Amino acid sequence: MKIESVDMFYLAMPEVLDIGDGSQDMVLVRVRAGDWTGWGECEASPLPTIASLVTPMSHSACHPVLDSVLGQRLDSVADITRIADEVRARSLDLLQTDHALSGIEIALWDLLGKSVEQPVYELLGTWGTAAPVGKTPYASALFGDTPQETLEKARSAVSRGFHAVKFGWGPYGLTTVEADADQVRAAREGLGADGILLVDAGTVWGDNVGLGVSRLPALLDARALWLEEPFVSGALRSYADLATQSGSVRLAGGEGAHTRYMAEHMIDHGGVGFIQIDTGRVGGISTAHEVWKYAHDRGVQFVNHTFTSHLALSASLQPYAGAADDWICEYPVELKALARELTSTHIDVDADGTIRPPAKPGLGMELDLVAASKYLIDVDITVGGRTIYRTPELTS
Amino acid sequence: MKIESVDMFYLAMPEVLDIGDGSQDMVLVRVRAGDWTGWGECEASPLPTIASLVTPMSHSACHPVLDSVLGQRLDSVADITRIADEVRARSLDLLQTDHALSGIEIALWDLLGKSVEQPVYELLGTWGTAAPVGKTPYASALFGDTPQETLEKARSAVSRGFHAVKFGWGPYGLTTVEADADQVRAAREGLGADGILLVDAGTVWGDNVGLGVSRLPALLDARALWLEEPFVSGALRSYADLATQSGSVRLAGGEGAHTRYMAEHMIDHGGVGFIQIDTGRVGGISTAHEVWKYAHDRGVQFVNHTFTSHLALSASLQPYAGAADDWICEYPVELKALARELTSTHIDVDADGTIRPPAKPGLGMELDLVAASKYLIDVDITVGGRTIYRTPELTS
Repeated sequence: MKIESVDMFYLAMPEVLDIGDGSQDMVLVRVRAGDWTGWGECEASPLPTIASLVTPMSHSACHPVLDSVLGQRLDSVADITRIADEVRARSLDLLQTDHALSGIEIALWDLLGKSVEQPVYELLGTWGTAAPVGKTPYASALFGDTPQETLEKARSAVSRGFHAVKFGWGPYGLTTVEADADQVRAAREGLGADGILLVDAGTVWGDNVGLGVSRLPALLDARALWLEEPFVSGALRSYADLATQSGSVRLAGGEGAHTRYMAEHMIDHGGVGFIQIDTGRVGGISTAHEVWKYAHDRGVQFVNHTFTSHLALSASLQPYAGAADDWICEYPVELKALARELTSTHIDVDADGTIRPPAKPGLGMELDLVAASKYLIDVDITVGGRTIYRTPELTS
Repeated sequence: MKIESVDMFYLAMPEVLDIGDGSQDMVLVRVRAGDWTGWGECEASPLPTIASLVTPMSHSACHPVLDSVLGQRLDSVADITRIADEVRARSLDLLQTDHALSGIEIALWDLLGKSVEQPVYELLGTWGTAAPVGKTPYASALFGDTPQETLEKARSAVSRGFHAVKFGWGPYGLTTVEADADQVRAAREGLGADGILLVDAGTVWGDNVGLGVSRLPALLDARALWLEEPFVSGALRSYADLATQSGSVRLAGGEGAHTRYMAEHMIDHGGVGFIQIDTGRVGGISTAHEVWKYAHDRGVQFVNHTFTSHLALSASLQPYAGAADDWICEYPVELKALARELTSTHIDVDADGTIRPPAKPGLGMELDLVAASKYLIDVDITVGGRTIYRTPELTS
């Protein structure tokens, strides 16, 4: 097959709020080749990502991303690897490239899987044709504005059948140690003694180790499984320092990684116990799978990062779908209507309390383009008098 | 002062060629506050960078860059730090942010320096009011298509008074070990026995250590001072591995770093002997200065990376202007007309064979906006029916 078109669509809720909710807009990617259409999603700011697809060339290492995808052959997994490598080399100096590539690479996998009638996790070749291993989903929620609200959110998640809940962002880390301790205690209380509690600081402490250390007693008391993103992704010395003091609370991080190297450095030099990878940012499914292998060989747990649609959720589960040791997964439960309605099928919690990607070709998700069209934002970019991007028609 | 406007301009040569020459287009940044105007340059793909400035918000950690700059107070160096920190936090998930911030931060320094009538290197506060230390400029050139062409380029650089020459990109690393050896020998021959020879592989070997090792004998024979970017910036294990085998040829790298952390990791875990920082990418002058301090404390040489205008050259010299130990600097000699004509003043080689930033307020460069206007590209971006960017008038 030859890749005939690569299109990006900017979708957004009618109102985008200044809160830590990444499901309020999206970059949807459509790739067509032969008789097939593949879909992917970039976990990215839409306009700069679209710009990176179509921008005029600056020099030989700063091509528009589209240049390295359109017209390429796509008949095998090796073709996906070759195309992604070419994008990275020819758009090396365009910083937004990794985010743009991620959604495209996911769409290539979806398309290839559909064309050969195999789920992506089978095509990865690591686990043969074995069925995917069910993962324990954790409900991913924002901290409430008050401890009471957090407590009620935790009870609500338990009542919906979740055994693990992660709270993050909101007020956590922004005021006092005591206020944060109250929040964490409330989360534990709402969750009950047996529930798995995860806490996400959302990089709020920059690289200040002391601010992280001060929160450890409450996290240890509440038996949190992990403390996520105490620091920005690059602050490896801060991660390593806090990791030596955090005892049974393991550090988690990696969602900011936009190359496999960044994820590997967190494992090698940051002392994380959990590496969290967003396929929509790290470079796509192949890159995420490489990170899974790297982590697996070093006794670090791989976990998906997903805060958007179930198309993105399927993409983020594929890279470790067959891995029995990596047992937990992020499952967003506060999705905005856009992210929920993008797909007509969803990945639901199975009777055994776990989730797994669909046993269907490609990513196995059905899109609802009529619903999605309600959220489509028209974009028009003109450079030097020439229109280089105009929102295409959102059809399959 | 209050920051009243932040504008970006896309300038480009009439024809942009598919060669490794980063001076073919630019993002020029203008910031106005009080009675002052500051100028900066992002070493970045223009359209995605402009998009990152003005894009609609996606969520609380994905604001447009402009949101954290416009309307801010700017009265001191601390204000620049605060603004840059705010940009990084509020635009954390927008990958292009660091490249956009870099040019803005440079313009803030230029503006502040003009308002207090001090050169930026003085405002940095590290070297008091001492005059900057002259650096030995190396002529930065592309390898010729043939060894003979490279030899002639080296001779030409020597005849123009350069004692150090760097060759990079072009055919180097792409074909055989023998072809590369011929190129390196030709460069040494053209340079003469005493000249300082530097070689830039332009990340051509990805992370493949063997391909780098195979080139070492010719580099050692030719007494190259450094081998630059044998691998992509993140491939620290490959860097460290090659560094243990490269003997007197030290590894150089870092131009891809878009945070101070990435630069620090190359020093801590990559074994580089020279850390090359582009102020137009790494986050600006403050970040580059922090990297200089970090390198200095660890015995690693700091070197600017500059392949564009003399406005960018001044910005890239400021962060280590007073450092006596860091003696070499990149000096682009094959600038396209755009990059040359942007400024009416230039940083020329002094009688003692060294260069230094101007002893004038701010970056000390005079722009030629009439000349620059010839290269201005009109851009128009409409999102949801609203024009969010239209090229402003290029005036001072």
